[in-house]
Amino acid sequence: MTEFRAVAAATGEPTGPAFAVHGPADVDAVCAAAAAAFDAYRATGREERAAFLEAIATEILGIGDDLIEAAMLESGLPRARLEGERGRTVGQLRLFADVVRKGAWQQLRIDPAMPDRQPLPRPDLRLRMIPVGPVAVFGASNFPLAFSTAGGDTASALAAGCPVVVKGHPAHPKTGELVAAAIARAVAACGLPAGVFGHLVGPSNELGAALVQDPRIAAVGFTGSRNGGLALVRLAQGRDVPIPVYAEMSSINPVLLLPEALKTRSGALGTAFVGSLTMGAGQFCTNPGLVLAIAGEGLDAFLAAAVEAVGAAAAQTMLTGGICKAYQSGVATLEATPGVDKLAEGRAGDAMQGHAALFRTTAEAFLTERAMGHEVFGASSVVVACRDEAELLSVLKGLEGQLTATLHMDAADEALAARLMSVLEMKAGRILANGWPTGVEVCHAMVHGGPFPATSDPRTTSVGSMAIDRFLRPVSYQNLSAALLPPELRDDARGDGAPRLIDGNLTL
Amino acid sequence: MTEFRAVAAATGEPTGPAFAVHGPADVDAVCAAAAAAFDAYRATGREERAAFLEAIATEILGIGDDLIEAAMLESGLPRARLEGERGRTVGQLRLFADVVRKGAWQQLRIDPAMPDRQPLPRPDLRLRMIPVGPVAVFGASNFPLAFSTAGGDTASALAAGCPVVVKGHPAHPKTGELVAAAIARAVAACGLPAGVFGHLVGPSNELGAALVQDPRIAAVGFTGSRNGGLALVRLAQGRDVPIPVYAEMSSINPVLLLPEALKTRSGALGTAFVGSLTMGAGQFCTNPGLVLAIAGEGLDAFLAAAVEAVGAAAAQTMLTGGICKAYQSGVATLEATPGVDKLAEGRAGDAMQGHAALFRTTAEAFLTERAMGHEVFGASSVVVACRDEAELLSVLKGLEGQLTATLHMDAADEALAARLMSVLEMKAGRILANGWPTGVEVCHAMVHGGPFPATSDPRTTSVGSMAIDRFLRPVSYQNLSAALLPPELRDDARGDGAPRLIDGNLTL
Repeated sequence: MTEFRAVAAATGEPTGPAFAVHGPADVDAVCAAAAAAFDAYRATGREERAAFLEAIATEILGIGDDLIEAAMLESGLPRARLEGERGRTVGQLRLFADVVRKGAWQQLRIDPAMPDRQPLPRPDLRLRMIPVGPVAVFGASNFPLAFSTAGGDTASALAAGCPVVVKGHPAHPKTGELVAAAIARAVAACGLPAGVFGHLVGPSNELGAALVQDPRIAAVGFTGSRNGGLALVRLAQGRDVPIPVYAEMSSINPVLLLPEALKTRSGALGTAFVGSLTMGAGQFCTNPGLVLAIAGEGLDAFLAAAVEAVGAAAAQTMLTGGICKAYQSGVATLEATPGVDKLAEGRAGDAMQGHAALFRTTAEAFLTERAMGHEVFGASSVVVACRDEAELLSVLKGLEGQLTATLHMDAADEALAARLMSVLEMKAGRILANGWPTGVEVCHAMVHGGPFPATSDPRTTSVGSMAIDRFLRPVSYQNLSAALLPPELRDDARGDGAPRLIDGNLTL
Repeated sequence: MTEFRAVAAATGEPTGPAFAVHGPADVDAVCAAAAAAFDAYRATGREERAAFLEAIATEILGIGDDLIEAAMLESGLPRARLEGERGRTVGQLRLFADVVRKGAWQQLRIDPAMPDRQPLPRPDLRLRMIPVGPVAVFGASNFPLAFSTAGGDTASALAAGCPVVVKGHPAHPKTGELVAAAIARAVAACGLPAGVFGHLVGPSNELGAALVQDPRIAAVGFTGSRNGGLALVRLAQGRDVPIPVYAEMSSINPVLLLPEALKTRSGALGTAFVGSLTMGAGQFCTNPGLVLAIAGEGLDAFLAAAVEAVGAAAAQTMLTGGICKAYQSGVATLEATPGVDKLAEGRAGDAMQGHAALFRTTAEAFLTERAMGHEVFGASSVVVACRDEAELLSVLKGLEGQLTATLHMDAADEALAARLMSVLEMKAGRILANGWPTGVEVCHAMVHGGPFPATSDPRTTSVGSMAIDRFLRPVSYQNLSAALLPPELRDDARGDGAPRLIDGNLTL
């Protein structure tokens, strides 16, 4: 195959222009250009790099409505959602511009020489973080803007000083092409080498595999399925020089309904839960796929409200036919699982649409049928009715790693919540109270990550400013003359405004 | 085998008491205790944890000369070296106590709620780093104190709040037992659960393998051979829940002699080089195993001085008979390599002693015979005489990842050095000028790490205060009440003196 076309999410029919399918020669050329651009790009000053990120944001906004329309057609997501997502994409780029300017990511450290120290003098030692090299980014199907071509992985890698090669998601090639062209315009306008950004598209997995195996690629960012993420991890580990893969893969995002909260507002919780469950057809990494509560009147009232809301929920076009089929298959598996009752399903739609599904089970069944703990990507959720706190804790402790864990609680639940905190911290990257896990704030204190298999590397986040750390490594400079030191580590630089750790003391 | 004894490094004969060989049941018990101790240990306040690290230092000093004598007998290292190493070990523990107190490692971040933000309010988000869980530490043979039972890996993991299980190196069981007992006394004196520190010994690789595969172990620290490190990485990646392995494995630490420096002080450089090469029988991770220079009179004079110094160098007892044999085999391989000339060797010793060896080759031969780029653990070094700068750059670019890269240079070499810097940064974790790579300062700006295969994870260091970051992961707290927040993230805590990033602005 040398060409492929997008598929309209709503109809399953091919649409729009034909795109050339990239192959090994393209991977080689794009990676060679990225490697050639690396030294010049990482030598850019902080202001120059920040301005480049802002220029990308401006260029993306400059595409105008064509971008929204392409994304609507290709993803089936509604206009308001995509306009919001564009705002988030642009906001991420501007956040990283601010982070680059402030410079704390460099982690500048200076331990001055101690020539008179006994028994041995101490040399002058200085440290900074440097970018790792060209980064491969895999666009995600469910965020055609904010976690795709110019999404969080790309923004954080470019902020770190790494050229980026995007393997665009084949579900939205036109959207990807528009954004890639915007980035290329920003590259040119800022006078940077073209290799700072590369873009590869094609429908096969071989393309992505070739990219991860290219020796010039130094790290990988990925958001997608568990199988896809693990495949990339294996490829990266099998290289002559293994590289890190930051794969955000799989999470069922447990929501714990604590007893007092269930007493006072079970109905409102049930309705709000379904709002989070069905948002965007449930196609979020943080979709609440598991609810834990102690059985009783409160849970019954919660379920009554949730059942009503699910029953009223309209079917929604899913991102791709494949995702829709996988969702239906996941729901069918749950239906056939011993000890699981289907409580409600949403209104049926056409062949490209998914409709919500709500299940109930017992702690005993959940702990026996481990497949219930696997993500069903879409608006499906399992409510586990536990007999008591001990059983709830067993279920919690038996869970795999998660992106999020949510507590719905009143003040009177605080003692119970406090007992759960240390378990929740070990299970999830983000713990939230009295909200819903969908809706991931892009800020400094966000962790969108978590223990395996939520991600392949729980030491990091893929959303928020800390994401830049993924693409950096430390280098120490001993007794180098000022001329050889990086400018920000010279005595007269004062860190150019960036914080520095001098002899162990943080200095602003 | 149920018991084993130490072997005196100098004689190869069994010595000292018999030690019980630990097996799977011991691994299980020690890991269970570590897991059980984790919550209580990580809940310790910063002052409490710092005092614990200082108590370990005091207890180690309290062992007195018995420790030095045991280490001398088991490792063959001389008294002065081991007394210095004890000072470093104690210094490391105190450095981490200071780091724990200052609290920057927590990376506290607060993004306050914005209830009135349009179109959506921003929730309150707070972030801190938490310890990953029990850490397995493999004692290194070449640092029986500073990188073994209470060495840098142990100190940094304990500082992070992780219980530690040490797999003691079988080459120094008595030394390890004395230090393990000192740590256990500190654990008890500080009122901590005994499982905060565990100690396993035995001569087989199966013991270490069982430890890395135990599901309660969350990360691994290792210093040793490339084969050993890679074996642990494979085991860790093959677990149901993969875990990070921080393995410091292999480096030949290129030393570049730049032309002007060679002109002005080639003889002094040659003599000083052999001092670094033969220190501790060459048994350092940062031993200078490769010298690069442009051929000419300067290099000839350097070699003449080096040949004289090597010829005068006494044979030295090596750490173990196995290491001694591996060294001799590595030297024999170099002797048999086409295009390699042996220039000098040190004075021969007995069967447990290694003597220095110096080789010369061409850039062409070095680039052809890739095995020349592999570490020979001991006092062996290869000098590559390059025709010109271009050839020197080719050799440099062809190297694998390194712990260090050294420049010997005068002011007039600065332009050439500047051209090399970007390559050196990509090849090594530490770049030093006009010194020798042996002698690793324990401080804040040290990086003892580097690109693969120098380490399995170049994003980190195993020496210096940044080593604590290896055993932490971020957790985000959204809209949690003060009672549920970790104390250091509460509004009234002001970080307890630790720096905080508030809305993106660093606040001391």
